[in-house]
Amino acid sequence: MERVGIAAGVEFSRLVYGMWRLGDDADTSPAYIRAKLEACLDQGITTMDHADIYGGYGVEELFGAALKGTSLRQRIEIVTKCGIVVPAGRHAAAPCKYYNTGAAHIRASAEQSLRLLGTDYIDLLLIHRPDPFMDHHETGAVLDALVAEGKVRAVGVSNFRPWDLSLLQSAMKNRLATNQIELSLMAHQPFVNGDLAACQQAGMPVMAWSPLGGGRLMAGAEGALPAILDRFADAHDVDRAAVAVAWLLAHPARILPVLGTNNLDRIRTLSEALKVKLSRTDWFQLYEAATGQPVP
Amino acid sequence: MERVGIAAGVEFSRLVYGMWRLGDDADTSPAYIRAKLEACLDQGITTMDHADIYGGYGVEELFGAALKGTSLRQRIEIVTKCGIVVPAGRHAAAPCKYYNTGAAHIRASAEQSLRLLGTDYIDLLLIHRPDPFMDHHETGAVLDALVAEGKVRAVGVSNFRPWDLSLLQSAMKNRLATNQIELSLMAHQPFVNGDLAACQQAGMPVMAWSPLGGGRLMAGAEGALPAILDRFADAHDVDRAAVAVAWLLAHPARILPVLGTNNLDRIRTLSEALKVKLSRTDWFQLYEAATGQPVP
Amino acid sequence: MERVGIAAGVEFSRLVYGMWRLGDDADTSPAYIRAKLEACLDQGITTMDHADIYGGYGVEELFGAALKGTSLRQRIEIVTKCGIVVPAGRHAAAPCKYYNTGAAHIRASAEQSLRLLGTDYIDLLLIHRPDPFMDHHETGAVLDALVAEGKVRAVGVSNFRPWDLSLLQSAMKNRLATNQIELSLMAHQPFVNGDLAACQQAGMPVMAWSPLGGGRLMAGAEGALPAILDRFADAHDVDRAAVAVAWLLAHPARILPVLGTNNLDRIRTLSEALKVKLSRTDWFQLYEAATGQPVP
Repeated sequence: MERVGIAAGVEFSRLVYGMWRLGDDADTSPAYIRAKLEACLDQGITTMDHADIYGGYGVEELFGAALKGTSLRQRIEIVTKCGIVVPAGRHAAAPCKYYNTGAAHIRASAEQSLRLLGTDYIDLLLIHRPDPFMDHHETGAVLDALVAEGKVRAVGVSNFRPWDLSLLQSAMKNRLATNQIELSLMAHQPFVNGDLAACQQAGMPVMAWSPLGGGRLMAGAEGALPAILDRFADAHDVDRAAVAVAWLLAHPARILPVLGTNNLDRIRTLSEALKVKLSRTDWFQLYEAATGQPVP
Repeated sequence: MERVGIAAGVEFSRLVYGMWRLGDDADTSPAYIRAKLEACLDQGITTMDHADIYGGYGVEELFGAALKGTSLRQRIEIVTKCGIVVPAGRHAAAPCKYYNTGAAHIRASAEQSLRLLGTDYIDLLLIHRPDPFMDHHETGAVLDALVAEGKVRAVGVSNFRPWDLSLLQSAMKNRLATNQIELSLMAHQPFVNGDLAACQQAGMPVMAWSPLGGGRLMAGAEGALPAILDRFADAHDVDRAAVAVAWLLAHPARILPVLGTNNLDRIRTLSEALKVKLSRTDWFQLYEAATGQPVP
Repeated sequence: MERVGIAAGVEFSRLVYGMWRLGDDADTSPAYIRAKLEACLDQGITTMDHADIYGGYGVEELFGAALKGTSLRQRIEIVTKCGIVVPAGRHAAAPCKYYNTGAAHIRASAEQSLRLLGTDYIDLLLIHRPDPFMDHHETGAVLDALVAEGKVRAVGVSNFRPWDLSLLQSAMKNRLATNQIELSLMAHQPFVNGDLAACQQAGMPVMAWSPLGGGRLMAGAEGALPAILDRFADAHDVDRAAVAVAWLLAHPARILPVLGTNNLDRIRTLSEALKVKLSRTDWFQLYEAATGQPVP
């Protein structure tokens, strides 16, 4: 599978496996998680997307248990995120949902991720949400420090608007490696509202969360989109999801879709999206169906 | 008529004649088009605004036929545009309306414009619309190449938002010479939403399309605007259109209105707008009528 | 009271007293205005926020009369603004409300402020509103000239969006010292829409007008906000207003609230806000109540 350079010495697989719902599966045993992981690796999907908060601060620990006693860590890249505090798990006492991009919290969160994952480095650490209370000097300095200490290999952000990105970058030595944003045929505004342009201008690959619109592209999407997805799916002998992912892969911004499914059979076919090469006119036919109107 | 520097060695007349509807006229004979052109030149309007797509990819050829065998080419500047593909004319087989800012398409489009216009250079080539599928490196490189080869003297964009402009500029050697946007008393958001500010900061003159609101300022505009336009028109002994154009000319951003009319009598009076010098308070009285409320 | 550096040699008190409604008071005698001023100075509030337009171009003169024959000028910093013209006072003949950021008007306005205030320098002169008709070269040059002549010690803007700020700054030698914007629990969009980020990235303290939402936070605010303000007020033994101001003070962007009240008793307690130290979770509880929903 194609590899994408994220930062000096850090390469990701073009498709990323997302752990968002890992804890929701009926089977969260180490053996079953390893089976999922092996199904990814069989296709060349080596990059695993976590966040401290997934599963109520529980998924990193489940994943760490699966890695334990194996040599799997050397074969994968781990992304994790920090900065959201919800009243659950180890933050049960929080008085409300809030963001914490303070130095102490980020450092503690990254170090806790290292412990729970049972690893001595994270490949990429992301600030999970733009924080309206952010002290960019403080946040930038702690991210730089974590890189300098070797605890994380690269740092980036998620859900940042261009001004958030620019502000944090202005206070850092390391370059922010990516912005992980919601991006799909259901969430296509970033293609025109400057969000993607800011990443492209920074030379920054983009990670796409919910590339299938949270499943709505598979069932529930209205209008012309389902029919045209099916038409392309038939033509390429894949499923609708593969076409929706291929639509992101075709774009020049180097988009890395983050794919999360607990279905082992579906995991085994994730890389089918790479077989589908969409042309520019294919891309615009899907975009027109997604926006509900021809381009202006 | 005032001349405006657009790029090294390229100067435009302050008023630009637009070819958008040239093909809609009852008479599209070379002789009649030459009569229109002479009516422009008599007033010092030397800059002619085209696009590959005007008239279903037909207007450039009509205009080229009018220039043929004359020395008119040396007396005018030609602007044309590329990047929109509609299922018509030579693109009748297109599966949907889409944008193509790929290198091969832009080069082919520019070269076709040269052939149809019967000229060996275009003064200014514009990307017609921001393309959500744009590879800025590829688009920037082909625009630079066309300048280097002498096929176009300058390049620019149309309908770009500030982030689109910044992205494409970041991948180019030549400076983008202009952004041609919709701008009028009916489309006044660019005066406050950053679109005009981005051009002013780049030191870039702005071309204004539909400076009369697609004719709505002449008939159909509601509220206080028609009455105040008439009041200024009476005071300056011109028509309403001349006041609306003068409103753009008064602004410090160096706005070049693109005026399109097929009426030969109206063409002969286009430059009357230049006689109307609006003061700052005149400008704000018209702006207040256009927005429907006093400034905050 | 904490002091904040605004420009070379210019420091403001963290809380600023606003003169917006000074002319509306029943008593506008020099003696009573001096009593208000002394009540501010007793708490360390030394910075006085004016605008040419306050009180229909009348407040600066009232304030100047109060300073006359005293040594109060040396103990305070004066902010004033220019650029809005309304048909009142010395501009009674204006044909409509408009903005004037032309060199002659700004110079005349600043010099008139000096005369009315009876001082030979203004500490900070602000352009009051972004002007859709601004010639940034002209406006920037006159602001630089006023600094060079010593008539103003620093210059800045008010109500500017990021692109307005960037445009004017691009044409100036002096750095714009601040952007005075509406900012409060009732006007919290600047925390996420890039307005505050632009100031933070420029290293520019922010002045906040209507920090109490024009009084609506004291009476009339709906939803969860009044109750949570009261809870924090009780816990800190202050009034609701002090909590709302402390919410701004807690933010890392160095926000200087501009507090305007004609009630002498309330003036005497303005600095109580400084006693309230809100934590990050306090801040987010108030923010959640203000926005009506948890952060995403």
